[in-house]
Order: sequence, then C-alpha cells, then structure tokens
Amino acid sequence: MDRDDAELLIRTGPGTPMGNLMRRYWVPVMLSAEIAEPDCPPVRAKILGERLVAFRDSKGRLGLVDEFCAHRGASLFLGRNEECGIRCSYHGWKYDITGQCVELPSVPQLAPKMKIKAYPCIERGDILWAYMGPAEKKPAAPELEWCMLPSTHRFVSKRLQQTGYLQAMEGGIDTTHASWVHRYELEQDPMHKHAEANKYIKADRNAVFDIVEAPHGLTIFGRRNGEPNSHYWRITQWIFPWFTLIPPFGPHALGGHIWVPIDDENCWAWSINFLPERPLPHEELQAMKEGKGIHVKYVPGTFKPLANPENDWLIDRTAQKSKRSYSGVEGFSIQDASLQESMGPIQDYSREHLVSTDKPIVMARRKLAEGARNLEKGIEPPALDAASHRVRAASILLDRGIKAHEWAQQALSDSLTKPVFTV
Amino acid sequence: MDRDDAELLIRTGPGTPMGNLMRRYWVPVMLSAEIAEPDCPPVRAKILGERLVAFRDSKGRLGLVDEFCAHRGASLFLGRNEECGIRCSYHGWKYDITGQCVELPSVPQLAPKMKIKAYPCIERGDILWAYMGPAEKKPAAPELEWCMLPSTHRFVSKRLQQTGYLQAMEGGIDTTHASWVHRYELEQDPMHKHAEANKYIKADRNAVFDIVEAPHGLTIFGRRNGEPNSHYWRITQWIFPWFTLIPPFGPHALGGHIWVPIDDENCWAWSINFLPERPLPHEELQAMKEGKGIHVKYVPGTFKPLANPENDWLIDRTAQKSKRSYSGVEGFSIQDASLQESMGPIQDYSREHLVSTDKPIVMARRKLAEGARNLEKGIEPPALDAASHRVRAASILLDRGIKAHEWAQQALSDSLTKPVFTV
Amino acid sequence: MDRDDAELLIRTGPGTPMGNLMRRYWVPVMLSAEIAEPDCPPVRAKILGERLVAFRDSKGRLGLVDEFCAHRGASLFLGRNEECGIRCSYHGWKYDITGQCVELPSVPQLAPKMKIKAYPCIERGDILWAYMGPAEKKPAAPELEWCMLPSTHRFVSKRLQQTGYLQAMEGGIDTTHASWVHRYELEQDPMHKHAEANKYIKADRNAVFDIVEAPHGLTIFGRRNGEPNSHYWRITQWIFPWFTLIPPFGPHALGGHIWVPIDDENCWAWSINFLPERPLPHEELQAMKEGKGIHVKYVPGTFKPLANPENDWLIDRTAQKSKRSYSGVEGFSIQDASLQESMGPIQDYSREHLVSTDKPIVMARRKLAEGARNLEKGIEPPALDAASHRVRAASILLDRGIKAHEWAQQALSDSLTKPVFTV
Repeated sequence: MDRDDAELLIRTGPGTPMGNLMRRYWVPVMLSAEIAEPDCPPVRAKILGERLVAFRDSKGRLGLVDEFCAHRGASLFLGRNEECGIRCSYHGWKYDITGQCVELPSVPQLAPKMKIKAYPCIERGDILWAYMGPAEKKPAAPELEWCMLPSTHRFVSKRLQQTGYLQAMEGGIDTTHASWVHRYELEQDPMHKHAEANKYIKADRNAVFDIVEAPHGLTIFGRRNGEPNSHYWRITQWIFPWFTLIPPFGPHALGGHIWVPIDDENCWAWSINFLPERPLPHEELQAMKEGKGIHVKYVPGTFKPLANPENDWLIDRTAQKSKRSYSGVEGFSIQDASLQESMGPIQDYSREHLVSTDKPIVMARRKLAEGARNLEKGIEPPALDAASHRVRAASILLDRGIKAHEWAQQALSDSLTKPVFTV
Repeated sequence: MDRDDAELLIRTGPGTPMGNLMRRYWVPVMLSAEIAEPDCPPVRAKILGERLVAFRDSKGRLGLVDEFCAHRGASLFLGRNEECGIRCSYHGWKYDITGQCVELPSVPQLAPKMKIKAYPCIERGDILWAYMGPAEKKPAAPELEWCMLPSTHRFVSKRLQQTGYLQAMEGGIDTTHASWVHRYELEQDPMHKHAEANKYIKADRNAVFDIVEAPHGLTIFGRRNGEPNSHYWRITQWIFPWFTLIPPFGPHALGGHIWVPIDDENCWAWSINFLPERPLPHEELQAMKEGKGIHVKYVPGTFKPLANPENDWLIDRTAQKSKRSYSGVEGFSIQDASLQESMGPIQDYSREHLVSTDKPIVMARRKLAEGARNLEKGIEPPALDAASHRVRAASILLDRGIKAHEWAQQALSDSLTKPVFTV
Repeated sequence: MDRDDAELLIRTGPGTPMGNLMRRYWVPVMLSAEIAEPDCPPVRAKILGERLVAFRDSKGRLGLVDEFCAHRGASLFLGRNEECGIRCSYHGWKYDITGQCVELPSVPQLAPKMKIKAYPCIERGDILWAYMGPAEKKPAAPELEWCMLPSTHRFVSKRLQQTGYLQAMEGGIDTTHASWVHRYELEQDPMHKHAEANKYIKADRNAVFDIVEAPHGLTIFGRRNGEPNSHYWRITQWIFPWFTLIPPFGPHALGGHIWVPIDDENCWAWSINFLPERPLPHEELQAMKEGKGIHVKYVPGTFKPLANPENDWLIDRTAQKSKRSYSGVEGFSIQDASLQESMGPIQDYSREHLVSTDKPIVMARRKLAEGARNLEKGIEPPALDAASHRVRAASILLDRGIKAHEWAQQALSDSLTKPVFTV
C-alpha cells in the first residue's frame, strides 16, 4: 500500500475523506450504561478525533455535544447535568441536547445565538450511537442481529486499543491468525473449548479464501480441510464500515466486533457475544464479565486493558514455553491487541508484504478506499440500508463437492429467520 | 481575539514582546523559605521560559543564575553552595551571586572571563523576587500592601497550574464565576463562610461591571443587587502585569494572587492571605497551611496540587449531585484550576465568545497587549512606580443612588491609611 | 563546536556519517546472559537507532534480526523461538538467524523470497556483539584485554544512560572530574578506597594532559603532583570508537567502559572490572553485583538505574553537606550520569566553553569527526586491527625528570605481556 492510500485509510478526523465516509453511518460512541440515568454525570467521549461530552438529560434524552463551552472553552465534563441541559460550571451557560444555549445568565438575550456542536443519538444493543454526518443524510438505525435482541441475550464490552482502527479491524476479518496466536486458547477458553471444529483450525493453518462482495460489505469464506471428504468453512461477515461477525464456535454464544476510531492512533475495540434465541446462561455471562472469551480485564476505573503495551501485555514466557499460550499473552483480544499494538500506533504500511491469505484485508481496504473516493465524487456509500445488516456469520462442514457460495446463498440469505449452521 | 493577538499575549520567553514587558517588573520566583538558610541546597527555578537555579550564599545574599555551568553545561542544581558561591560538581567551576566565575581550578587565569547569566534578587512578603530586565531600568521594589506587612500578618503559598498565565489570571479578575463554581464553597469554607454578603453573590449571578483605568492597572467594580435599596459592590484590583486583589469576604482575611509564567504552558499561581492590622489568628493560619480557602493540598514534596488534570481534579460526582460542590471539585483554587486546565494548556482563543461580563478580561488583555506594543516603540510600561501598588480591593453595600467610582475615589485613594470597607 | 560538527558527532542512525563509521566495528548489543539458553525468549534491542530482536536458536546460534515481521509488521518480540528459528505469533512466518524466512505457512513457495534484516553476532567477554556494516568489511573480533580473559576474571554490567553516547563517553576520558565529583567516593567505595594514590587525585585537582595518538585511538597522560620529587600519572586509553580503559586504583580490579548509542538521546553505558591474572575475589564480585564501584542498582526488571533523572538521581543534600558525597549523588556511575543527564539528552554544544583540561575531549571529538569524514571519502577507519586493542591503562608515580611518554613506550607497548604498573 503506498503512502497516499495509507493516509486515505487511516485519517478519520473532520474533513478527511475517510472521516466524511464514516460520518455517514451511526457511530458507536460508548456503552449505554456509561450514562445510565437521567441527569447522570457527563462523560467525555473522543470519537473520530472529535472531543465530545455525552449525557442523558432530565427527561432521559441523549446528548452528545462539543466538550467545550462556547464562552471561554471550559470543559463541560466539569459541568452540571440538570433540568434538561448541561450547564458549564464556570459561568453557568447551559446547553440542551441539541447544543442550543438555553441559558446565558449574564446576557440572556444572547442565548439564542449561541449553539455548540451536537449530534443526534440513539441507543441500541446496549450502545449509545451518534450520527455525525450531514443532517439530511441520516440513515436508518443499524439492524445487526445482536442489536435487535433483548438485553438478556447479549453481552457487550469495549476496550481501548492503542492503534488506528484499521490494523485492529484487520484482525477481525482474518481467520488465518486463529490457527496461530489463538491455537492454545481455543482449547482452554470456557467460551470456545467445546467447539469440535477447533481441531480443524489447529490442523490446517492454511485457510484458502473466497470472498464475495455483498450489499453489507464482504462475505469471507475461509476454507480448511475438514474430514477426509469434507471442508471446514468459516464464514466471516464484514459489515461496512467497521463491523465484523465471528464465525460460530460450536455450541458457544455467537460473537462480533466493532472497530471505531477514537483518533488516528487509538480505537475502541467493541466485543459482543449473543444468543439469538435465548438468554445467555448465567455462568457464561459471568465469565464474560470476568474478561474471558473475547472480553478483557481492565485497569480499574478505565476501559484500558490490564495487559497493555506499557507492561508488555503481561507476557508470560513460561506459559509460552509450556504451550498454554502461543505468544505468552493471555486471552483472544489481548493476543490480537498485543500483535497489532506491537506494530506501533500506525503500522508502517510501506514495509508489509501481503500474501494470498491477506485477501480479505486487501479487499476490505479497497472497499473502504473506494467508498471514501466515491463519496468525494458524490456517489453514495454502501450498506446504508439497514436491512443489509441482517446477516450472519457461519461455520460448517460441507462435502468437498459443494461450493460454499451456493450453500451460503441458501443458508445465509434472509438468514435471521433460519437456524445458524455451526460446528 | 485573533491569532496574532493571542500569540502576543501568551508568549513570554526571552525576546518576545510580552516577555520583554514582564521583564521590566520584579518577578516572583519562589518562596523565600525554599532557600531558607545561607549555603542551602540550590533550587531549580523555571521562570518566563528560562531555566535558573536559586541559592542563598554563605553571607545570606540571594543568587539566581543560569541553571547550567558555562563549561560543559552540567546543572548547577547538582552543585555545592559553599563559601560564597555555587560550585559545579563536575569540575569545580564556581560562580558568585552575580554569575561571575570566581574559581576555575584548571585554568585560573580564565575565571574573570567566564560569567553566567544572573539576576538581582530581593525578598519581600516571604517571596524571592528577581529582576530579569535591562539593568538600567530596574524599578523600585513592589509595594503591594501584603508585601509590606510583618510575616505574622500574612500567609503565602504557590501552586503549579498547567496552563499559561493568562487563562489563570483571568479567573482572578472575574467576579462573575464566584456565583457559579464557588457558590457552595462560599458557605462552607472556614475562610469565607462568615461573610454575610455571600448571599448577594449567590442570589445575583449577573454582575454588571464598571472598569476604571488607574496608575496601577485596572479597578474593576462589579455590581450585584444587595438589599432592596442598595447595591452590593465587589471591587477587584488588577495591578499590572500579574497581581490581583480579591474583594474582602466580610471579617475574613484579605486575599490576593500573583500569576507568573513558568513557560507558555505552565504558571505559578500564588495565593496570599493577610490582615493589615494584626497577626493572622492561629486557627485560620492552620487552616491555610492545610490547604483551605484559596490554598491547596499538594502532591508530597512538590508544589503540584494533589487534585490535578491527571486525576480529573479528584472530581466527586456525589458531592456535585448533593450540592456540596458545584462542579464536584473541592476548594476555590482547584475549582478555578480545573476549569482553566480543562481548556488545555493554551486555550483555543479563536473559539471563545466573550460577552459583557467579560469586560474585565477584555480590558486586561488590551492593557497587556498595549503595554507590550508600546514597549517595542520605546514607550515605558505602566505601574513601575511602586507607590501605585498601594491600593486595596473592597466589597461594600452602597445606596443605589451612589456612584461607586465616586465612593471609591474617596475610600480607596490613599486607601492604606484608611479602614477597609467590607461586608 | 559548531552545529554541523555537533550533528556529525551525535547522529548515529542508519545512513548518517557517524552511523556508517560505527557500523564498521563490532557493536556491543547486550549481555550474553540476556539470551542465556538455546530457544530462550527473544529480547528486544535498540542499537544505533535500529529496532532489533535477539535470540539464541535451538543449536545455540546467535540471531539478531529486524524486530518486525516482513508480513504485517508485528513484533518478533512476541514470537516463538523454537526449532532453529523465530516464528511470528501472528501468522507463523518463521525466520532463521540469517533473517531468511524459512517457513511461510500459507504460501510456502514465497518463503525463499522473504528475508528480514539480520546481523552476524559473536560472544566475547560475556557480551553479545553484532556487526552491522557491509559484509565484506567485517573486521576481526575485538581483542581488548578484558574480552580475552576467562569469565571468572571479569564482571560486566550495563546501564541505561539518558543522553547521547558522546557526552557519556567524554566522562570516561576526563580524569579531571575525578578530583571533584568523585572525591569523597574514592575514599569510601570498597573497590577504590585502598588506592594510596587517591590522595594525589584529591590534592591536585588540576591535571595537565599529554595526549598521544596511537593505532587504537588515544593514550591520554594526565599528570598530577605526586611526592615532592615525583609526578602521579593517570594514563587512560581511548580505543576507537567507544571503549575506555580506566587507570588502575592501586590493588583494586582494573576497569573499563563502553559507550554505545541506543539512539541519539540514549546510550548503553557498559562497565567492566577485571583482573588479568586471577579470578575476581568473591567479596569484590559480590560488591559489584550489588551495584558498588562503577556498577549500579537497577529499577527491578530493567537496566535503568534506580537513581535517575525522574527522581533527581536520589540526591541526598545531607550527604552533600556532610561531605559523604560531593554532589549528594551516590556511586561513581550515577555521579557521572547525573551530571551528564542534567545537560539534557543532547548537550547544547553551542554554549560550552572548553579549556585546556578538556584536551582529551577535543581530541576524541576530532578523531571521531575525522573518522566519519574520511570514511565518506573512502578512507578506511582506524583501530580495525584487533591487535591494536591490546593496550592497558596505567597509573604510576614517576620522577619529575622522567617523560611519561617514554616510560609508557617501554611499559605499555606489548603491555599485555608485562605487569601493570599501579599505585
């Protein structure tokens, strides 16, 4: 990837082509629970390079506004959220959820002229989402399967990753690396170890890819050897521009991720587990809360993983030696994060050598770049139609004679009304 | 404020217009107590962007010299202060308080040719002051009231603020914000709660300003509603270029501040309490030492407040909710510091919207800018005459018919010989 | 030194003239013990601005390769060192000690085309050395005396110094400063206090230098007054480009240093003690391990000294006052490091004033600059002949009539076959 292409993909601040593209979608901002109650304390949010503050007003309405008061620039993080607005603690200027200044005590007649940036918000899937693009272009709310389920069927967490969103997301569409860095984790983690097909992942480290462009983005068919007469397929969904759905691991809860830029050198890595048809079992839910599976343990009081670059991801060389862990780093998410963070906050793209197993990455990059360039020419972005989000990932053993695409067209189209095929 | 004006005001390093202006005044450097004894350890001081080291020589004389030895550039902080000079520990070069090299052991005949930067110092008001400007322009020592009192009548502290001096100082000339961020503190703090007039500050959050230019800088008349037939006036003094005097709070000790650039992104915020006619009562002094009133608690061994940007100023959302604290941050000084530090080390002046209650800020900026520009044209700065410093702040209830300026001319002119009017 | 000369000397990254020069020598990289066993965990190494990873393969062979995998740029620090190569944990690409990719699981036929940077390594003197220059120019292994001894006769440590290599190394060729910052340490440290000649160092702080250019670099003769009819000579060897040998302190173990750039603002300061003819006594060895003499105590788990710039080198003003320590900083190495680090990571060379006692520094700088400039013209660097390394430092009392050079020519030529003269 040359420097221009890399710059196009990784810069997402206001006014950048990729920033403009991403602002055409609903952006996951924070957990709903971070602003749980009406008149809760305001919470800072940095998203796509913009410093914002979120709050829930007295009537329970969601606010996401510029972090800084229009008056002197003090942070509204220090403000008071009360009586249907957030009030700057310095001189009492007050803003409602639309960013409109509704009280300017010292010069009341000026209030109507003062307005700060504000973005419309929704809640869905235990997440607060904002729309940061042009008002007239606001799309329908996202309809990913896990979004639409009752809360009991789902667990959502987020963690800080100290890289740009791209090198984080690329781990999510790359089934190959599971055969390597996750190989010992697969057989030990309580949310993965009962999948019989783990043996295929471990045995055939050389997935072969078919990739199909779809209205939602890409469907990525990763083929491994299964039984003598079958192939084991892991079918990952990449939903434009930042969602990934993980192929199932046997009987375990389904999973997915979202990869959202904080700024160009940091992102939120969201992890979701869900069961389409029943609540998550208590024990499994408990394990997720404790940071098992694709979730993590935190530095107390933060969303920063306890294992992070400053402590070499708590690498355990004995575990690495004894094959309890491939790299000595513990947990799926930190295994990915460690490798991606070790590349530096922004990978040196001029030095990489992509090969055939990187086809999903190449295609996702191409789609993203194309989306950004098209938008500059006035061509509307893909996957704005929420119905396109209603896809599933799958994992399945198929006879060697069967073409996975054809199987998938039947099995996955309108897939939310059909059972998931898992191994 | 446009970018050029902002740059003019905030840059104070050597050779900048504002730096040249400030160097025409005696500059508060550190507490006298930091270099308490003859031959005490040298102490580093960064002031107006210059790295210096202060010491008291064997005869008790004050030295403030370049931090770095002229020889190899080692820090004189590591040096030995002994026998009337500070000696570099590396090769023994020794400097007296004038910066003159008085011993250069390996090549004695070179010593007279070696001299490092040194600034004349005085002690006044428990503070070490330096004069960093052209020798022939050295003004008389400052004569602010609190400077001239016996030590028993005064308590002086300093704290690091992680912003430029301007956005710190602007809090000191802005009575309006007291009605907001300090409103619950006023009725709780032991050094403020007995002022009956606090009720006017709380009730009328919309101060109206008259500002009068004076030889010392500005006298700022802030008018609030008092009783039905009276106005409550808070009269703040801004003494050019960095002193502020706080209007009295009833029977409590008087107060003032100094706002001195460390560099363009940090400043020393000095806080002074004093009683003109008697020693500070033991109990009140004790409270000041414990960080009450306008003073703060420190990170042990430093002058950095315990509540600082790295820990979100120890914000307590329960206290904010229960109205024990308006912003959830504790103490007058940290309430101001938190808001000012939340703007970033240098506020984005292009985004602020000043209104009529910001008149004191506008005028102080104008006077500072004018002073810097005038000096470049050869016009001498204001308030060099120490007699002009002999002013007081005041707070008073006046009949609505009385013009405060006129009252003040009587009451505050030659004010140090007259009683202070306080409510 | 003007800016151009300073830049020439301090910049050592790939492609810089000084970097090119240094890459013509064997470069000390880390302690052998850091990669003690075959298939040990890989260890990161930053040297001359290059980020590398070192390992010992299954056959015990030494590897020093680019830190980052050629594929996606993940760090090989997280890799698995097994079966004669280091394997990236992300997708299993594997490299041997030559940097050749020997397995590329997903596209095996590509492996022969993938190669990462790798440098040949040797072990000598308990140190791992790499050759980072053009293959055809690789010199013979270094033959400094301490390198060639059995391990029992030697103790080697390294510490991080937060300055460029030059201002660190300059302390090693400057006997003058021993009379100052080390003066109280000389009489207290267990590895120095029995040298009778310490009294000459303390009494005559004004060493006079004769410096002789030699095939290995410089021999620096520092003369102090000895007894009424004698001079006390300390004869330091500077072996191009980064070795120094410390003149002996009486009966104590001999010493030396190496000063190796990590990058332009950090270096490894190596400290070596040795006895040419017998094992180090247990007690002395123990003291070295505890950080006495020229060695240091560390921040646990690192090679960063416990006393460092962030804690003002644990300066003890009481010790300074009571003359237990000249600067209040403890230990020879931290005394030097503190002064050098206090200059900033790169000293401001435009402000220094060198005098006659800085002659060794001036000459070493000149030799280094000349070496770098000559290499650019195609002239081969000095001291590539390992035989030239076989020199010793010395300290000796000589009759005032004797010319030290002449004495030295006899005593030090072929010095390794003769006894060391020490006082």
